[in-house]
Amino acid sequence: MYKKRNRLTIQQYVSGILGGDRVALGRAITLAESTLSTDQQLAEKVINEVLPYTGNSIRIGITGVPGVGKSTFIESFGKQILDQGHKLAVLTIDPSSQKTGGSILGDKTRMETLASDKRAFIRPTPAGSTLGGVGAKTREAMLLCEAAGYDVVFIETVGVGQSETMVKGMVDFFLLLMLAGAGDELQGIKKGIIEIADALVVTKADGDNFEKSKMAKKEYDRALHLFPTSENSWQPKVKICSAIENFGLGEIWEMILDFEQIMKTNGYFDDNRSKQRLDWMHGHIRLLLENRFYQDKAIAEKLEKMTPLVLKGERSSITMARDLVKEFLVEKKHDL
Amino acid sequence: MYKKRNRLTIQQYVSGILGGDRVALGRAITLAESTLSTDQQLAEKVINEVLPYTGNSIRIGITGVPGVGKSTFIESFGKQILDQGHKLAVLTIDPSSQKTGGSILGDKTRMETLASDKRAFIRPTPAGSTLGGVGAKTREAMLLCEAAGYDVVFIETVGVGQSETMVKGMVDFFLLLMLAGAGDELQGIKKGIIEIADALVVTKADGDNFEKSKMAKKEYDRALHLFPTSENSWQPKVKICSAIENFGLGEIWEMILDFEQIMKTNGYFDDNRSKQRLDWMHGHIRLLLENRFYQDKAIAEKLEKMTPLVLKGERSSITMARDLVKEFLVEKKHDL
Repeated sequence: MYKKRNRLTIQQYVSGILGGDRVALGRAITLAESTLSTDQQLAEKVINEVLPYTGNSIRIGITGVPGVGKSTFIESFGKQILDQGHKLAVLTIDPSSQKTGGSILGDKTRMETLASDKRAFIRPTPAGSTLGGVGAKTREAMLLCEAAGYDVVFIETVGVGQSETMVKGMVDFFLLLMLAGAGDELQGIKKGIIEIADALVVTKADGDNFEKSKMAKKEYDRALHLFPTSENSWQPKVKICSAIENFGLGEIWEMILDFEQIMKTNGYFDDNRSKQRLDWMHGHIRLLLENRFYQDKAIAEKLEKMTPLVLKGERSSITMARDLVKEFLVEKKHDL
Repeated sequence: MYKKRNRLTIQQYVSGILGGDRVALGRAITLAESTLSTDQQLAEKVINEVLPYTGNSIRIGITGVPGVGKSTFIESFGKQILDQGHKLAVLTIDPSSQKTGGSILGDKTRMETLASDKRAFIRPTPAGSTLGGVGAKTREAMLLCEAAGYDVVFIETVGVGQSETMVKGMVDFFLLLMLAGAGDELQGIKKGIIEIADALVVTKADGDNFEKSKMAKKEYDRALHLFPTSENSWQPKVKICSAIENFGLGEIWEMILDFEQIMKTNGYFDDNRSKQRLDWMHGHIRLLLENRFYQDKAIAEKLEKMTPLVLKGERSSITMARDLVKEFLVEKKHDL
């Protein structure tokens, strides 16, 4: 996907990023995404250098099923934010594209206005072997964008996979886009996603759809009311908007700014970020341990042989797990 | 908690369990719960011997917040099941009792009728260091109970922790007990629990509470309707019952039998059990890897030193995770 280029020095990456140089930023993200361990080590040094300059953004997760109008929403909403003097980074996670190898051109095409605006930076996370791995890359890209001065970050996901909980763990505010008039079912939205949303936004509230959208808002308001408020005591809001008629977007941005102010006042904003940092560390530890285990050849072979027996119930799951982990750790010891 | 006794031989445990000997069953469960690795190895051998005789039960998860009347419900519901000629095992997971060291006497007191009935077997899972570890013990206890001829198994949890998803992963049917008239909030039930329930049961639907319970049923019916049906295409039901007036319990049992028959016909019953077996193996692998990592002294020391830096954002979470895992696996290699 990318041409091989010579690497810059740590200092070149760092000063480029801190100076807001988009090329340096892009190359640093590429470095962080690399599977080469030399690249990763370099990227880690860059990230640790710029770390003091990260965090000064509002991080917004945006999700919704295909067809809900995510790209159009992000274009119009993003434009509005830029016009208020902000710099916007849009990072996209699409687990379904992991197999096809990313959609970098696709993303720039579907968000043409933002893509051609110098105040915006659009970047999809390319193919990764695991969702957690993709998440780690996105999180590092987010930090690099913040260091480069982007003070609003969108993390976009497709809303049908397991990526939402992960995204929730790296953003301040989580926005779920919905369609009106899709009956009484929540339109294929994975169970649980609705519960982690800080706001539901009914899109395409224009023309014939306007009345339906208002009704949908009422229905969702009632449904949300059934859930207990979360620990930050924020009651999830339901909004309607039309990206085409440029209606309701200002209100959504106001809501997010309100949220930010309330959370910064009650201390939850910083608490949440600290907690997220720690969660990411532990989550990544688990991910790396698993990767090492499942990538071990001897283990993989034994697993393949034993899995059918476990499926059929001929071997106990727990015993099997104990045997395999024992073998993995003992083998490591002899692996000098 | 238990007196030290000499261990039986594998054959003694096995023939005792298969013969329905409650003492042998209890001692085998104690063995599986032991933290001594010699005990665990013995337990694993016993479990693998009886494995062909497991699985012939309907496994029912029961949860609900304190005060919902779980014990009373289990007593009355269990009694009804016994009277239809079944043998019932009740296994309790109470993560909150992990610190106090279990509540074995407590459980037998609060379910007096069942405790004194020879057709029922009540067993709390004692204190464990991790929830996953407790779950593994409960799962092994369940298998041992099945081998001993118990053809209905209740797995009871307190409904305020994280144990519900774990229990969902070891049962065929998941039952959530609710109270009527607690306003429009879901009474402190953790978000997400409602979504994994196969049925909601409004308890204490007697006296003044009867009308309120009927209204609550309507409200929950409407709320459940908003969620998409799960992959087994079972539409979660809402029932009301009174354990004191012995009302509605028969209907709940009928519903579970219906569920069993439908799922056995469409193949989901076996598919789900196979999937659960595999999930348990992989889940337990992850748990054991983590345990080994976090119990490593050098790692624990470094973690304690670095955690404040990660919390404050002075070190990158991802970098920190990579460093620690690298150290753990390298250290293992030198650990000869």
